[in-house]
Amino acid sequence: MRNFKLTLCYDGGRYDGWQRQGNSDNTIQGKLETLLSRLLEQSVEVAGSGRTDAGVHALGQVCSFRADTEESCESLLRKIRTYLPEDIGVISLEEAEPRFHARLSCREKTYVYRIWNSEEPNVFERRWMLSHPETLDLEAMREAAHALIGEHDFSTFCANRHMKKTAVRTLKSAQIAARDGEIRISLTADGFLYHMVRIIVGTLIEVGEGKRASTEMRAALAACDRMEAGPTAPAKGLTLWQVRY
Amino acid sequence: MRNFKLTLCYDGGRYDGWQRQGNSDNTIQGKLETLLSRLLEQSVEVAGSGRTDAGVHALGQVCSFRADTEESCESLLRKIRTYLPEDIGVISLEEAEPRFHARLSCREKTYVYRIWNSEEPNVFERRWMLSHPETLDLEAMREAAHALIGEHDFSTFCANRHMKKTAVRTLKSAQIAARDGEIRISLTADGFLYHMVRIIVGTLIEVGEGKRASTEMRAALAACDRMEAGPTAPAKGLTLWQVRY
Repeated sequence: MRNFKLTLCYDGGRYDGWQRQGNSDNTIQGKLETLLSRLLEQSVEVAGSGRTDAGVHALGQVCSFRADTEESCESLLRKIRTYLPEDIGVISLEEAEPRFHARLSCREKTYVYRIWNSEEPNVFERRWMLSHPETLDLEAMREAAHALIGEHDFSTFCANRHMKKTAVRTLKSAQIAARDGEIRISLTADGFLYHMVRIIVGTLIEVGEGKRASTEMRAALAACDRMEAGPTAPAKGLTLWQVRY
Repeated sequence: MRNFKLTLCYDGGRYDGWQRQGNSDNTIQGKLETLLSRLLEQSVEVAGSGRTDAGVHALGQVCSFRADTEESCESLLRKIRTYLPEDIGVISLEEAEPRFHARLSCREKTYVYRIWNSEEPNVFERRWMLSHPETLDLEAMREAAHALIGEHDFSTFCANRHMKKTAVRTLKSAQIAARDGEIRISLTADGFLYHMVRIIVGTLIEVGEGKRASTEMRAALAACDRMEAGPTAPAKGLTLWQVRY
């Protein structure tokens, strides 16, 4: 059995997220597993670096799979590209060392949330950004985001109320950049909880709107209570940007 | 009657082009005229700087219309933005001098044809580019494009065989730039004939593929014969970039 590492991008707009759901095949994982199983004439299981929600996009999602084949990566890559739908693109396919696993070997991930912050409509990129034409206080948002950096229990920013495993994650950086009408919130961590990026973004937007003080962020984090955070920002603005190993 | 100048962008993918067609309202002009007539409670005719074909996009299309109204541009702009579909965006609305007419006053236009020239798929911008993964000889394409600059009869690059008016246009610049897998062919002229940009691009692609010598371009132009040019490149790669007055 050889082990493969596949890096891909996708426009998540019309998919039910990454994770295969029973018989529904409208997921990225489902599309990949179905295609690889047919191409390689064996049952192939694909492990993603993590799940992305329905409607979330990826610029550099990584997944791994094992298969018994003699085929070269170049040849297999060409076939995969031919048969995948247009909104899923394979950036690279390479052979990985036997112990590599897209999720278990993952060291850190960066998610980027894109906000279109202008009165002018953005016709060409509207599918990948949240439109929020009203002014946002970026300095307050940066202060609030900074308060989250470090190793913390992020339960306040997690939608799964009955988590059995630890909610401790290390947020390594939280940057907010604005250019040409677009605001990008980039979060890098060793891992993310369910809806964590979208809840953090929803809370930061409330700070930017002046509905919530940036100084309240520490207390909200310490409370370990979802009710202390803002709403979950819509999926369409979120992109899994990069996965590092 | 006041005179207005409206600058807009659109994703032309799902429209039957700019020009209103009888009762079909699936055109950009149709959408604008219907909306403006309702908002201003009078029959409004919109004049575009020129027609764009079905599937062609715009980053800076300009149109003008006259209306009997006291409403401020700001207020009217807000209403237009509220009611237009998401794939048509108004960049600005301003009052113009009485003699301004989007088509008749137009001095020059720039069209950009975008080619995605990489084996890697481009998931996020695929709708606005022609995918052409095979290598293109950019230097040959630049030489060929350069031969078209100046004032010429462009009948060779016109799809309308029974044109009564002159086919003489002045091509002011023809630039081919490549960056990060994308090739952009930018053409600026005082005016363009029917399908002119797409036929020039189709011919330049043949040059880039080595199917046609760059040195043949002058003779093709001089022939004033559509049969001497290459195929019409697909609409999806074309964007009306800018209109100057």
